Amino acid sequence: MAMTMTQKILAAHAGLEEVTAGQLIMADLDGVLGNDITTPVAIQEFEKAGFDSVYNKEKINVVLDHFVPNKDIKAAKQSKTCRDFCHKHSIKNFFDVGKMGIEHALLPEQGIVTAGDCIIGADSHTCTYGALGAFSTGVGSTDMAAGMATGKAWFKVPEAIQVVLKGKLSPFVSGKDVILHLIGLIGVDGALYRSLEFCGEGISSLSMDDRLCICNMAIEAGAKNGIFPVDDITIQYMEGRSQRPWKVYEADDDASYVKTIEIDLSSLEPTVSYPHLPENTHLAKEGKNIKIDQVVIGSCTNGRLEDMEAAYQILHGKKVAPDVRVIIIPATMAIYKECLRRGYTESFIDAGCVVSTPTCGPCLGGHMGILAENERCVSTTNRNFVGRMGDISSEVYLASPYTAAASALTGTITDPREV
Amino acid sequence: MAMTMTQKILAAHAGLEEVTAGQLIMADLDGVLGNDITTPVAIQEFEKAGFDSVYNKEKINVVLDHFVPNKDIKAAKQSKTCRDFCHKHSIKNFFDVGKMGIEHALLPEQGIVTAGDCIIGADSHTCTYGALGAFSTGVGSTDMAAGMATGKAWFKVPEAIQVVLKGKLSPFVSGKDVILHLIGLIGVDGALYRSLEFCGEGISSLSMDDRLCICNMAIEAGAKNGIFPVDDITIQYMEGRSQRPWKVYEADDDASYVKTIEIDLSSLEPTVSYPHLPENTHLAKEGKNIKIDQVVIGSCTNGRLEDMEAAYQILHGKKVAPDVRVIIIPATMAIYKECLRRGYTESFIDAGCVVSTPTCGPCLGGHMGILAENERCVSTTNRNFVGRMGDISSEVYLASPYTAAASALTGTITDPREV
Repeated sequence: MAMTMTQKILAAHAGLEEVTAGQLIMADLDGVLGNDITTPVAIQEFEKAGFDSVYNKEKINVVLDHFVPNKDIKAAKQSKTCRDFCHKHSIKNFFDVGKMGIEHALLPEQGIVTAGDCIIGADSHTCTYGALGAFSTGVGSTDMAAGMATGKAWFKVPEAIQVVLKGKLSPFVSGKDVILHLIGLIGVDGALYRSLEFCGEGISSLSMDDRLCICNMAIEAGAKNGIFPVDDITIQYMEGRSQRPWKVYEADDDASYVKTIEIDLSSLEPTVSYPHLPENTHLAKEGKNIKIDQVVIGSCTNGRLEDMEAAYQILHGKKVAPDVRVIIIPATMAIYKECLRRGYTESFIDAGCVVSTPTCGPCLGGHMGILAENERCVSTTNRNFVGRMGDISSEVYLASPYTAAASALTGTITDPREV
Repeated sequence: MAMTMTQKILAAHAGLEEVTAGQLIMADLDGVLGNDITTPVAIQEFEKAGFDSVYNKEKINVVLDHFVPNKDIKAAKQSKTCRDFCHKHSIKNFFDVGKMGIEHALLPEQGIVTAGDCIIGADSHTCTYGALGAFSTGVGSTDMAAGMATGKAWFKVPEAIQVVLKGKLSPFVSGKDVILHLIGLIGVDGALYRSLEFCGEGISSLSMDDRLCICNMAIEAGAKNGIFPVDDITIQYMEGRSQRPWKVYEADDDASYVKTIEIDLSSLEPTVSYPHLPENTHLAKEGKNIKIDQVVIGSCTNGRLEDMEAAYQILHGKKVAPDVRVIIIPATMAIYKECLRRGYTESFIDAGCVVSTPTCGPCLGGHMGILAENERCVSTTNRNFVGRMGDISSEVYLASPYTAAASALTGTITDPREV
């Protein structure tokens, strides 16, 4: 029976020749991930269940990224719980202050995840690694606990939506605009428990950072996962980086999809999701009357080097609007350092921005840029739910780094082609 | 009647020919300062008292430095309260995200305070500006409110302790060691409501950053203020920087002091204040058995360029101990940027540190590096009271940037001359 790319990966990890949508399977895991918020809960469950060892100390990944350097005593205790557990179990991939980064930027960057993997993470944006041709998805802390102990997780094999990409993105249009546009088309529950399988000749013009951004937000359409085929760009990214051999899975030509959506990349324009749902998409050029108070450029969605480069292209030699706070957050220490070396950081500061240590902070209203009442933020993050970044009356406008940087300059929502 | 340097400044600002210790006076203010914690309270008092304008929009200074970029909704609301007030009253010196810095580093750096000034600030470390030959002291938010409205504040003229400095500091010994040593000598109430007036030939070997650090911690001996005479080093610092003309006051030769303390700078060694009081001083070289979890280099006490340079001297080309989190916080955006340009930042990162945006954060258990239970931190900050930086069982060891950086390398309290 014909299978989608996701189904093929799941079948292989379940030791089955084939699987069909809706089937319950138990799959072997190539990695289990948690952060400073979810791991302490998982550790509690792990210990309550009486587990005394992890299935593979090289395949557990614990990343302190939400509230680091710790913003308060509670966060400090959460970090300490993670630290003590990782020391006790000799967890190899434990990322503390100094080696830190946002989990979904760090794991691909460090070659910890690779093509063909089956990965769970106690964080909803774990679906990011589909960009590498892996199956990865977010789970709860209890599943993380079981995964750490047994190296297995159960899944209901998902149906799939095929997304055929054609053409090529215009300048100042990026992967973020692709995924916002798609969510605008199908809605925040448009892919509920389904795979979003990307294909088509348009893929070859998308960088890995574009693809990571696109897969990262698959969950914002309700998808179980997002996934890209492995091509030369993927191979080039993994070479010299991947810590393990990768395996390439391909969807069968006659695989069955619930539906097929076609997107002409060349027709896309800078797109912004207005409050309070990612599906509430508008064109950036229509936002001139919306005054903003803050801009955040970063997160697991858009804190990668190309995102920093996009911000630099717009901000270099300019000044941000006087009443706008602009917080730029390179997603990992490696990206942070590369921003230093390329002069981006100095340029950002000259423009009036601040550059934070890597953290998820503001995205989830965690720290490093929380909004007060009635404040508006253009953010390259992934969710604009009510109160997501602060006070319940504050508003979040989701956009690409280009659009966010352009809006920082003008103080209103701005199409980056117009600055 | 003979007066101390402090008394001369107070007399001049009270419009009196002379003042004597214990006298209550009303003085004109050259500046009123508040931060994101204290200013909202002052604004509330200002408005409750029915004031509708500030005495001088160029002399009010509001600096967002404690919890910025905002760590939570409460902090965001505090910042917004400051922002709205400063806009309403056209306050010139309002420092928001992007222009921010730690108040007591920022005001001297920007030339907002200068020699001969009389300044109050709703922050206990306002005494820092004595390094420039100004009288400055910390007040409550109510006094800040009255000061903003009237440009005046009342003081009880302080008695003084004379601190005669001789000799010259050895390499890897700094201003921080001087003030810790002094507090160790006289205790945390050793200068209660008195001026600490520094003098002697040893002064000429102390940089402005040393002096700023020393005056900053005058309050930790209970002093009303700390003050240095104006010499060539002060003049050089103020030239091209001071936004107003300065005035030099000198203590009368026959001024009366409660006591005189002599310190031979050349005899000082790297010094550490153990928990839980700054007076609990020990030599750094005796701390080898004290294992630490975190190092913080920054704050209004030691976040200036020379402090960064000291950290760089120790950390460059080395790696911090594997289980130590090291958080370096340049005190202002200008210092942050200079660290970039000089390659300090890249060097810190290569050593395994993180470099935060300017904030007071960890010093007061505010954010950016809070301690969990039983954790120990060597910190260049100013207070090591119980629970100051986090959990009530955590411990803070106060030290210079040299000593803190050396301790970061070894993971135990370390004399910087031994790494």
